[in-house]
Amino acid sequence: MASNGTIEGSVERHGGLEKLGANNPSFVLQKIQHVVFENRPVPTISPESSDVIIQIKQTGICGSDVHYYNHGSIGKFIVKAPMVLGHESSGVVVAAGSGCQTLSVGDAVALEPGVPCRKCPPCKEGLYNVCSEMAFAATPPFDGTLCKYYTLPEDYCYKLPKHVSFEEGALVEPLGVAIHISRQAKIIPGNSVVVFGAGPIGLLCCAVARTFGATTIVAVDILQSRLDLAKKTFGATHTVVAGAAPSKENAARIIKEANLGTGADVAIDASGAEPSIQTGIHVLRSGGTYVQGGNGKYDINFPIGAITEKELTVKGSFRYGSGDYKLAISMLENRQVDLKSLITARYKFEDAEQAFKDVDSRKPGLIKVLIGGVQDE
Amino acid sequence: MASNGTIEGSVERHGGLEKLGANNPSFVLQKIQHVVFENRPVPTISPESSDVIIQIKQTGICGSDVHYYNHGSIGKFIVKAPMVLGHESSGVVVAAGSGCQTLSVGDAVALEPGVPCRKCPPCKEGLYNVCSEMAFAATPPFDGTLCKYYTLPEDYCYKLPKHVSFEEGALVEPLGVAIHISRQAKIIPGNSVVVFGAGPIGLLCCAVARTFGATTIVAVDILQSRLDLAKKTFGATHTVVAGAAPSKENAARIIKEANLGTGADVAIDASGAEPSIQTGIHVLRSGGTYVQGGNGKYDINFPIGAITEKELTVKGSFRYGSGDYKLAISMLENRQVDLKSLITARYKFEDAEQAFKDVDSRKPGLIKVLIGGVQDE
Amino acid sequence: MASNGTIEGSVERHGGLEKLGANNPSFVLQKIQHVVFENRPVPTISPESSDVIIQIKQTGICGSDVHYYNHGSIGKFIVKAPMVLGHESSGVVVAAGSGCQTLSVGDAVALEPGVPCRKCPPCKEGLYNVCSEMAFAATPPFDGTLCKYYTLPEDYCYKLPKHVSFEEGALVEPLGVAIHISRQAKIIPGNSVVVFGAGPIGLLCCAVARTFGATTIVAVDILQSRLDLAKKTFGATHTVVAGAAPSKENAARIIKEANLGTGADVAIDASGAEPSIQTGIHVLRSGGTYVQGGNGKYDINFPIGAITEKELTVKGSFRYGSGDYKLAISMLENRQVDLKSLITARYKFEDAEQAFKDVDSRKPGLIKVLIGGVQDE
Amino acid sequence: MASNGTIEGSVERHGGLEKLGANNPSFVLQKIQHVVFENRPVPTISPESSDVIIQIKQTGICGSDVHYYNHGSIGKFIVKAPMVLGHESSGVVVAAGSGCQTLSVGDAVALEPGVPCRKCPPCKEGLYNVCSEMAFAATPPFDGTLCKYYTLPEDYCYKLPKHVSFEEGALVEPLGVAIHISRQAKIIPGNSVVVFGAGPIGLLCCAVARTFGATTIVAVDILQSRLDLAKKTFGATHTVVAGAAPSKENAARIIKEANLGTGADVAIDASGAEPSIQTGIHVLRSGGTYVQGGNGKYDINFPIGAITEKELTVKGSFRYGSGDYKLAISMLENRQVDLKSLITARYKFEDAEQAFKDVDSRKPGLIKVLIGGVQDE
Repeated sequence: MASNGTIEGSVERHGGLEKLGANNPSFVLQKIQHVVFENRPVPTISPESSDVIIQIKQTGICGSDVHYYNHGSIGKFIVKAPMVLGHESSGVVVAAGSGCQTLSVGDAVALEPGVPCRKCPPCKEGLYNVCSEMAFAATPPFDGTLCKYYTLPEDYCYKLPKHVSFEEGALVEPLGVAIHISRQAKIIPGNSVVVFGAGPIGLLCCAVARTFGATTIVAVDILQSRLDLAKKTFGATHTVVAGAAPSKENAARIIKEANLGTGADVAIDASGAEPSIQTGIHVLRSGGTYVQGGNGKYDINFPIGAITEKELTVKGSFRYGSGDYKLAISMLENRQVDLKSLITARYKFEDAEQAFKDVDSRKPGLIKVLIGGVQDE
Repeated sequence: MASNGTIEGSVERHGGLEKLGANNPSFVLQKIQHVVFENRPVPTISPESSDVIIQIKQTGICGSDVHYYNHGSIGKFIVKAPMVLGHESSGVVVAAGSGCQTLSVGDAVALEPGVPCRKCPPCKEGLYNVCSEMAFAATPPFDGTLCKYYTLPEDYCYKLPKHVSFEEGALVEPLGVAIHISRQAKIIPGNSVVVFGAGPIGLLCCAVARTFGATTIVAVDILQSRLDLAKKTFGATHTVVAGAAPSKENAARIIKEANLGTGADVAIDASGAEPSIQTGIHVLRSGGTYVQGGNGKYDINFPIGAITEKELTVKGSFRYGSGDYKLAISMLENRQVDLKSLITARYKFEDAEQAFKDVDSRKPGLIKVLIGGVQDE
Repeated sequence: MASNGTIEGSVERHGGLEKLGANNPSFVLQKIQHVVFENRPVPTISPESSDVIIQIKQTGICGSDVHYYNHGSIGKFIVKAPMVLGHESSGVVVAAGSGCQTLSVGDAVALEPGVPCRKCPPCKEGLYNVCSEMAFAATPPFDGTLCKYYTLPEDYCYKLPKHVSFEEGALVEPLGVAIHISRQAKIIPGNSVVVFGAGPIGLLCCAVARTFGATTIVAVDILQSRLDLAKKTFGATHTVVAGAAPSKENAARIIKEANLGTGADVAIDASGAEPSIQTGIHVLRSGGTYVQGGNGKYDINFPIGAITEKELTVKGSFRYGSGDYKLAISMLENRQVDLKSLITARYKFEDAEQAFKDVDSRKPGLIKVLIGGVQDE
Repeated sequence: MASNGTIEGSVERHGGLEKLGANNPSFVLQKIQHVVFENRPVPTISPESSDVIIQIKQTGICGSDVHYYNHGSIGKFIVKAPMVLGHESSGVVVAAGSGCQTLSVGDAVALEPGVPCRKCPPCKEGLYNVCSEMAFAATPPFDGTLCKYYTLPEDYCYKLPKHVSFEEGALVEPLGVAIHISRQAKIIPGNSVVVFGAGPIGLLCCAVARTFGATTIVAVDILQSRLDLAKKTFGATHTVVAGAAPSKENAARIIKEANLGTGADVAIDASGAEPSIQTGIHVLRSGGTYVQGGNGKYDINFPIGAITEKELTVKGSFRYGSGDYKLAISMLENRQVDLKSLITARYKFEDAEQAFKDVDSRKPGLIKVLIGGVQDE
């Protein structure tokens, strides 16, 4: 089999259920900081459906995975039963219902790992990412993708362009996050954009802002190495090392160093850090837009006075929604982003626990860690 | 002279400068809590201009006037030299440059008391309210309208409909504030709107929300008397007495009492109070919009986590801008708001200091206080 | 049973399939101008689904029904097999799958008679009305609602407020059409709106424009009686009898008679007539918005030069989509529209053919014709 | 003097009036097809103003200039008195009022050649391009820029980046036109865009669409040479030779050749040709957007039925407005467009008439023709 694209010589477009192995090895969080490998049942799909079964090939570790691993909960989502981890995945379609119209057995795909109810007002209004009935991978009570076989409706799987590897395919998920943030920010050509945090999401926000036509893109982080990557590979035009000064002073320094005039058009926080959020508000010009992407403390000290004084718009960004994966695939197809540069470590499936521990240790050089798929028996 | 409308029998559309008296009595803040009456020079206009001179007939007192009176500053605006107070005014045109096309001597008008530079990017983008060169009445260093004669370009004066009194004309200003807030909130027909604070702005926000088609309008305040007024006269469909419980609990109670389902579409803060702001965020449904209208503490404790979790939009609202006064006049013309019901006390011009002291005392029944114009000699 | 609301004493929320009669009398278009009554199979639903079966109580006749009756096709939609007519219906839920969360057996509902695929890009973007897989009642090859029993997913049925009759419930459909048109037009408070055609849709557009805050609403038609109704009952502030003059002159006359200054903010065509469309473009101010609601000739003579010169926006409006029925129900709940006034004739189910013939004859007084439901055996 | 940037050694920021020569040679349309060189008065500015006088360096010839030359009118604009031609110009500031804050004597600038009233509702709403009081160069009764000295307020002059020549500076005007069209089209990343007409505006629309993130850009023209240029230099991903088939067939062919699925997201007409307009409507997917940029016949045959059936948005684009020149300068600064490639002929000022005649002859290879400035005496 090729490492991506569609399997050559595949004859059957649909079907495939009968060829799946009997085992579905899965990486399960049993309780806080206690993970095990379990053999879960192989998923089934109705033969007439438009659902597919994907054999997972690569999975990225996200901050939320590690947070569940360490704390057993994120906000209102509490792990009450053992749960398979992982949600940034790519794989190959190994079974497809006969209703499938866009996918066939053998297709290499990126997974959009949350399926909404399709019926509630947000779903009908084009805001399915805030559907309250969303079944999202590795968000309790729903199992994640760190397993051999995972199932989705075909319209939540996106065919990878020919030149795109499974590793890159797994990182379509964080790219989708960055795209959603940038769309919330309504970045338009000529805009100046300041991005706080140069981890995977922040770096990708820089690249997406560039694709949206932003001409001044300022990356802010505490690590010079990440800022260098932002500038070299992800389209940042300026970089600023975050300081410990009060947020207004920090903002003034960024405005000065990046030559932002009366302030930036757009500020994006991809760090979740309280000082970054405050600085992000102060760095904006009157009428500017701020988007909260990162997650940190729920309640923070916040300059609400600046919101009225400068008539700002502040928006949250939650996961990804309509059109985000499509644009992510388009960016890959047009080589507008270099996802491979994010990858700093690769682990085999059976070393998943070590991968989590290494991410948890927050080694400086680490950006994105990938875990491979379960090998065929 | 009629109390409003255009003076009957007025022959000359332009001119009028020669008929103005030599005196311009003005109510001046000299230093904190020290006000005096001064005779300032009568303003002049170029005869060929499209500027007008207005004889002020009624002026409302706004919280910002009282704040300057008590503190000598609001945020970055600091009173460094004696300044005439007042900016909510109506009056009659007593002189008009020959370039005037829409106004004539004798016209009764509401004053939009801030003139932008007309040249900067915000001015050209339709966002003149955030023009950094704005000359705004009673915002240092610019004098206000508590005087006999005040001058404006004709396009910042709005002719009052025939049935509208000067008292109502003065209150077009706070109505413009409420309209701007509601437009920032993008209220659409069928929306549910929760308004925090039932002072003049909050009450008017209720009335404007009704005009925008909101079908559930919830007024929240600590005073039952104001809530009664909100319901009786300003279109509130529900009222809730603000509580001292944590903001999430308060929000849950409002949602329950007003039958808001998963939360409100729109929340507006017209109070500036920290607990109201927090409650306003928690009262929203996923995807809802919050607008900060009121001013209070600059930095507050703020549930930023809710912004991402519910993918909210938070917007500031600063003064009023393009189209806001036009819509205010239209609401008066169509009798969609009862401005008279806001007025709880009236003072003569020479009693202006007493008016400020009474507003400052925050008597419970007080909502909006008006000060009359200087009598002709 | 009450004529509306939920049946008193209804015990079972779900189920009901076993109580349905064996017959489903249906009014079927066999070929052009040839209709028959047939006994079609009673629809079935999966017991665990969230689908319902509705016993139809009232159905309005729409221009498109008559067009199929007379021509056997509308544009690309061609009747190739016998098809049940009708799509403006209300009824009562007589069976409900156990997955239903919002509806119970006995509920009185308005039917949104088109179900999209829920999976394609338009569906996910909140534009399900342009879903290419839409199954729409009485649009070939899909049967309509002029039958005893009809089935829909529960989320395409809308519970009628208590005081709303089945007759009004049937007319939620054209109200949804008018709401969709008005939302396409982005009518905002203070707008001036000119509506061409005072048939059911045009009249409802006047009422909806009023609810959206329009302050000048001009109805244009060739029949004075319809204009009188527009003014008396549907919120038109001005009426103008359409003339035979060239469209620019007609537009100038409307602008003058309705005091529209440099032109209207919004023009809506609910007639489909070529002269109305041309006049609608000419009646707009620079920057105005035109919405094409009515259907007539596919290709017409059109003043494209006015589109650039005045930088206009022209939008089509196709059926109704996300949020339209919800707002229609809200308007009924808040008594913002008088649907009963549209009804000019009522027919029993067995007289359906006569109803079609009478509508087809275009008697002057006729506006909306209703056909009752099949009586229980 | 350098050919661009700011003159080295310039000492005085303001002033300069006294150094202007006494002559202002101008290229004047006296009557249809009759042009002469006249010495017009040197413009003056008030010393305290924020106006500047520009010595014109390069001027492009636009289709509208030639239309006035040939017909003496465009639509409602009729040349009644001799009028200086030209409006696509760059130059150097030779005098500046003391109120100037952004420009100094010696600055190289591109001219935005229309100054609105700054007071009317469109001006205040950010839509100054439709200001009815606009004074636009070479639109009667206002003289154009084909002269030695021309005056503008400083905020309608845009400083050229250092590496940008006066030739490119003159072509900022058509680039502004293309940007305005693309903003009307609301092009977003990932969009497919079909551009009809590969003259200067159409070619620039391709380049702008690329900057806005469009990934499929289809140029359509009758000349292969222009299509080649569109692909080689201006970002077109596909080119299609326009055909003589009915517009629906033409559209189907374009969709097929450019692999547009169910149709394009955006269609732009930069030709004004009736068949292109019709094809542009048919080439769109449901929910797509069409922008009319080019001018041709005022009334055409138009498929209005497609507007409703596909729920399309059609917008006009008139000149340029708020932010368009700023973005044009940004595109030049970031080398996102190659304006030089548009230039196919250069003329001295004294050969202006020959330039007009050559443009009028519509030689195949000709795209954009420039006329140099008047030499200092």
